[in-house]
Amino acid sequence: MSLEYLFKPKSIAVIGASRYKEKVGNVVFRNLLYTYHGKLYPVNSKAEDVEGVKAYKSVKEIPDPIDMVVITVPREAVPQVMEEAVEKNVKAAIVITAGFKEVGEAELEDKVISIARKGGIRVLGPNTFGIITPEFNATFAYTDVKRGNIALVVQSGGLGVYMLNWAQKYRVGISYMVSLGNQADVKEYEVIEYLSRDPETRAIFVYLEGVSDGNSFLETLPEATKRKPVVFLKGGTTSNGAAAAKTHTGSLAGSFEVFKAAVRTVGGILVDNLHDMLNLAKLLMYSEPVTEELLVITNSGGHGVLTSDEIEKNGLRMVEIPDWMKETLRKILPPTSVPRNPLDLTGDANKERYYSALKIVSELNSTKLVIVQALPMVSCTDVARVISNFKGKGVIGITMGLDEDTALKILETTGIPAYTFPEDAVKAIKYFVNKPIPRKKIRTVQPIESAIELVKGKKTLKDYEAMKLMEIYGIRTPKWGIAESVEEAQRVADSIGYPVVMKISPDEPVHKTEMKGVVVNVEKDQVKDVYSQLSKITKRVMIQEQLNGLEVYIGGIRDPVFGHVVLVGSGGIYVEVLKNVAYGLSPIYEDEAQELLMESKIHAMLTARKRGYDENSLIRTIISVSRMIVDLNIREMDINPLFVNERGAFAVDVRIVFD
Amino acid sequence: MSLEYLFKPKSIAVIGASRYKEKVGNVVFRNLLYTYHGKLYPVNSKAEDVEGVKAYKSVKEIPDPIDMVVITVPREAVPQVMEEAVEKNVKAAIVITAGFKEVGEAELEDKVISIARKGGIRVLGPNTFGIITPEFNATFAYTDVKRGNIALVVQSGGLGVYMLNWAQKYRVGISYMVSLGNQADVKEYEVIEYLSRDPETRAIFVYLEGVSDGNSFLETLPEATKRKPVVFLKGGTTSNGAAAAKTHTGSLAGSFEVFKAAVRTVGGILVDNLHDMLNLAKLLMYSEPVTEELLVITNSGGHGVLTSDEIEKNGLRMVEIPDWMKETLRKILPPTSVPRNPLDLTGDANKERYYSALKIVSELNSTKLVIVQALPMVSCTDVARVISNFKGKGVIGITMGLDEDTALKILETTGIPAYTFPEDAVKAIKYFVNKPIPRKKIRTVQPIESAIELVKGKKTLKDYEAMKLMEIYGIRTPKWGIAESVEEAQRVADSIGYPVVMKISPDEPVHKTEMKGVVVNVEKDQVKDVYSQLSKITKRVMIQEQLNGLEVYIGGIRDPVFGHVVLVGSGGIYVEVLKNVAYGLSPIYEDEAQELLMESKIHAMLTARKRGYDENSLIRTIISVSRMIVDLNIREMDINPLFVNERGAFAVDVRIVFD
Repeated sequence: MSLEYLFKPKSIAVIGASRYKEKVGNVVFRNLLYTYHGKLYPVNSKAEDVEGVKAYKSVKEIPDPIDMVVITVPREAVPQVMEEAVEKNVKAAIVITAGFKEVGEAELEDKVISIARKGGIRVLGPNTFGIITPEFNATFAYTDVKRGNIALVVQSGGLGVYMLNWAQKYRVGISYMVSLGNQADVKEYEVIEYLSRDPETRAIFVYLEGVSDGNSFLETLPEATKRKPVVFLKGGTTSNGAAAAKTHTGSLAGSFEVFKAAVRTVGGILVDNLHDMLNLAKLLMYSEPVTEELLVITNSGGHGVLTSDEIEKNGLRMVEIPDWMKETLRKILPPTSVPRNPLDLTGDANKERYYSALKIVSELNSTKLVIVQALPMVSCTDVARVISNFKGKGVIGITMGLDEDTALKILETTGIPAYTFPEDAVKAIKYFVNKPIPRKKIRTVQPIESAIELVKGKKTLKDYEAMKLMEIYGIRTPKWGIAESVEEAQRVADSIGYPVVMKISPDEPVHKTEMKGVVVNVEKDQVKDVYSQLSKITKRVMIQEQLNGLEVYIGGIRDPVFGHVVLVGSGGIYVEVLKNVAYGLSPIYEDEAQELLMESKIHAMLTARKRGYDENSLIRTIISVSRMIVDLNIREMDINPLFVNERGAFAVDVRIVFD
Repeated sequence: MSLEYLFKPKSIAVIGASRYKEKVGNVVFRNLLYTYHGKLYPVNSKAEDVEGVKAYKSVKEIPDPIDMVVITVPREAVPQVMEEAVEKNVKAAIVITAGFKEVGEAELEDKVISIARKGGIRVLGPNTFGIITPEFNATFAYTDVKRGNIALVVQSGGLGVYMLNWAQKYRVGISYMVSLGNQADVKEYEVIEYLSRDPETRAIFVYLEGVSDGNSFLETLPEATKRKPVVFLKGGTTSNGAAAAKTHTGSLAGSFEVFKAAVRTVGGILVDNLHDMLNLAKLLMYSEPVTEELLVITNSGGHGVLTSDEIEKNGLRMVEIPDWMKETLRKILPPTSVPRNPLDLTGDANKERYYSALKIVSELNSTKLVIVQALPMVSCTDVARVISNFKGKGVIGITMGLDEDTALKILETTGIPAYTFPEDAVKAIKYFVNKPIPRKKIRTVQPIESAIELVKGKKTLKDYEAMKLMEIYGIRTPKWGIAESVEEAQRVADSIGYPVVMKISPDEPVHKTEMKGVVVNVEKDQVKDVYSQLSKITKRVMIQEQLNGLEVYIGGIRDPVFGHVVLVGSGGIYVEVLKNVAYGLSPIYEDEAQELLMESKIHAMLTARKRGYDENSLIRTIISVSRMIVDLNIREMDINPLFVNERGAFAVDVRIVFD
């Protein structure tokens, strides 16, 4: 059911509206009284009136229809209040009351939600700080919010307040602020989806500690991120943080790596911290065009040097100034200056020189970071006024000096992004230009008949079964065979060709190397000895063609929130050391597989020294694995190593676990 | 000669003191007039007086002795003015005039310096913005500087001004500000050394684009960093930045990796950017004790989660609250709250609850990050006053809300570090607790006689010569031999034992693998074929024992600024891909070698899967290389691979280049 009644109710009742100014129930009612132009009613079991408005003992007593209730009564009273709301045919409820799942009271929370569901009421919360919309403020924040085009969605009330404070301080206008609370009913993806359609919202900023319903998230978000930028900050990304998040909103913070993959998949932007989030908000609230090629204009050489460094460190590029433009610039620079990027207007530059320089470079297709250090010859406000003339040409102001705040205000009023640290601007641009392509994951399940046959009823696969499964899914394997006697071993090895690799073949997955169960470089005359040595561990022995090439690791897991995930990284024993593992959600598409190979540096390793290793075969293997784990609902699997060489990609050792 | 006359002159003349308010020569004179209590004289070739003070046509005409001159005349006049200063027996000069080496006029600069040197004058600059000391301001900054205990040393005038502005804005007191300019005479290390002895200075912050004299830097700095923290920010760390730095102060920015190694060696702290530098200044200007174990106290769960994440990401630790302390905390927390770290005092915490919590935890050995989000129940200023009572207990305030600036001021006046972003505090703490141990590099040169014999007159070594050189320096090699015929090859291989590795043995270093000049796994019956194949490329063939183990890369280079440097990283062909190379200056000490192995992840690789690989042998090899390259003045060398296994570390392939 739509969230229309939550965000655009025609009438609101505050249940628990209080006469005492310091009570949440009073603050919420007052905030609504001052902002809301629909019909508003206080509900208070004892008082005759609240803030001069006639109060009702129960929502049922209100003579008019009520679209939404805001509930601030003690938690024990919430079920009863919800019952009454159902009887009154209310459509939406904001439960500000806390003390539910976040402190272990899951049962009470479930009871409230089940009453609401039966009555067709959509519930925000419990344990929410409330919402702010362009029409009303149903929170207990004192803040006077500036209206604008940035929407905030937060799982933590404290962060919600912080962002509102911050918005006011930095003059960022807010369209919506939604505190999700425990998300017992209304979920983050529904709110984001709703806001993505809101014409007053230019970008959505989301603080999450966990995602409740991964499938709906993956289903809904790609559409939302196409409409406007959706920026995520995740709390609980480390084990400390995750433990803290759990006690805090009752949500379990899942694996951060999987969340990262999910955000990339849906086309969201994931920032590292609050600071980055706020800096990105400063960029996205305006319409100034931003490119990944930058031009730095400054009156301080040192700032030019540091900013160039930051640009390169963040993987952005310094734009090349064409020669004719350099010639023109030469005319306005002191004779000893060389026109280049960073463009140092030198310490004696006045506002006229800034103007001339900007005029000359304005048509250059690049983002212009205009840095001004207040010096005797020029002030930040001077240059801010100059920059204002170039709005729409990709200008961003960096103002440094005692009048920097005034200069910031001048730029912001003109609608030009402005910062006091160049690195803040550079990082915000990096996030924006690297915004991933939104992809919808369509998880078709159509297992191959022979694969079903092979895995039916099994908890794990034996090595030869795993080899067969690979082949069924079109994943290449080295030549291989199984032997249970010396004679058979000799025959199999002969048919494969020397040298061969011989390994133990246990019924359950074990760590073969650690058990000294793998012998490489076995020649014809050694097969017998090696067999008798290995058969002391397991009678059955696997014999394989010996391969060379790059050892790659491909893993598969089923995440409790986001479903099947594929991991790609360095194979062999260094996978844990190098930690160059990239994560992608199933099914993986060809272009995504390529991105995973870039991210994990496997691409760089494959193409080092031009050995002609077959990257496409590796991509195909990743894709096959990503489909197979979904088809067969595999709990976890590893291919380690997968050898990639000039002939293709070959799964050498495979471990698979089902439920 | 000491810098005493530069920083504590008894009399100053401003040569080029101007009557026109907007001229540098006027601003400098006025700044001195208002701050300096010694004897001050304007020198102006035309005017009778400047700012009401009698002016002289030349410094020579001044009737009293002059310790220092500040020169602001046009560059053409500087040599003449310097001559006169010499005649006047001046001891120090600040040359503010620009237009020397930084714009290609190296000759003019050299001329000025040679005049000064002959006359015994120490020169700061040219192209300097001037200096500020506790006694005077000899710059052309308008800023009114707050006196305090942070010293700034900058190579860029613009950054100097910026830091002064910043200091004023954030109420950071400055003891000294020194703009180095072109460093034609007075060098950064002399200034840092001088300031490290200054009793009014608590920490020194240095912005550098390049180091002029690496040996003196390495010699002087370890003593300075023992006295007080010295923090570096390097401009020109990337190729963009380096090019910009060159045009900017005429200094060539060297390899950033080597600079990083140099700063670590001398015990300096290297920050990533200006932002980090300023945040660290906020920490170091106070005496609050800081540890690497942190306790987070907050009234907002979300901030607690995010801050825990930051702490873990930065390699710091969350302190464990002892059980008895938890029991005590339980009494002051709401019944539903669990005392843990982060300690969530919850959204209804008032200042009394903050006070009680701080009282309980105050003796816990940890840094306490006290976060306050202004909420209806509590304001930032309330909590700032509470925190002030715990100065000296390792408290740091994080204030968030509309009154955060007032709260910051309250904390700063009490001498407690305070921030508005938790991540800023966490990062500052990380830099501080990871301050490296200062080490003095003593480069003794005492080459072994037989090594001199071996390398005499050579530009490179042949492979077998390189093997011998390794052995002379106690570096282990695999069993090896050289063969120039099939018979000899067979004999050598027999004596080594199978399988062997056979490689071409050219007279000049080449890329053997790319020339298909390396064959591994050679068995007895294959020696003949392999020899005849390889001998088509080079008649001489190197035969080696085939080793296994971890392939490590050890390199040596001679840096133009800092001398000999050792590189340690992954060997084999992935060295460029993984980029896990750590740099250390020769000679490397045992504990440093261990740090390099940690930094390059080689330690983790060596110890993965408990294979008993001999790390100590690798450490010995690194140390031997670091001494050998100095002894023999090697221009560059690589050992790649060095095989490390349970028996030791073995140099398999060595390339050495002399001048």
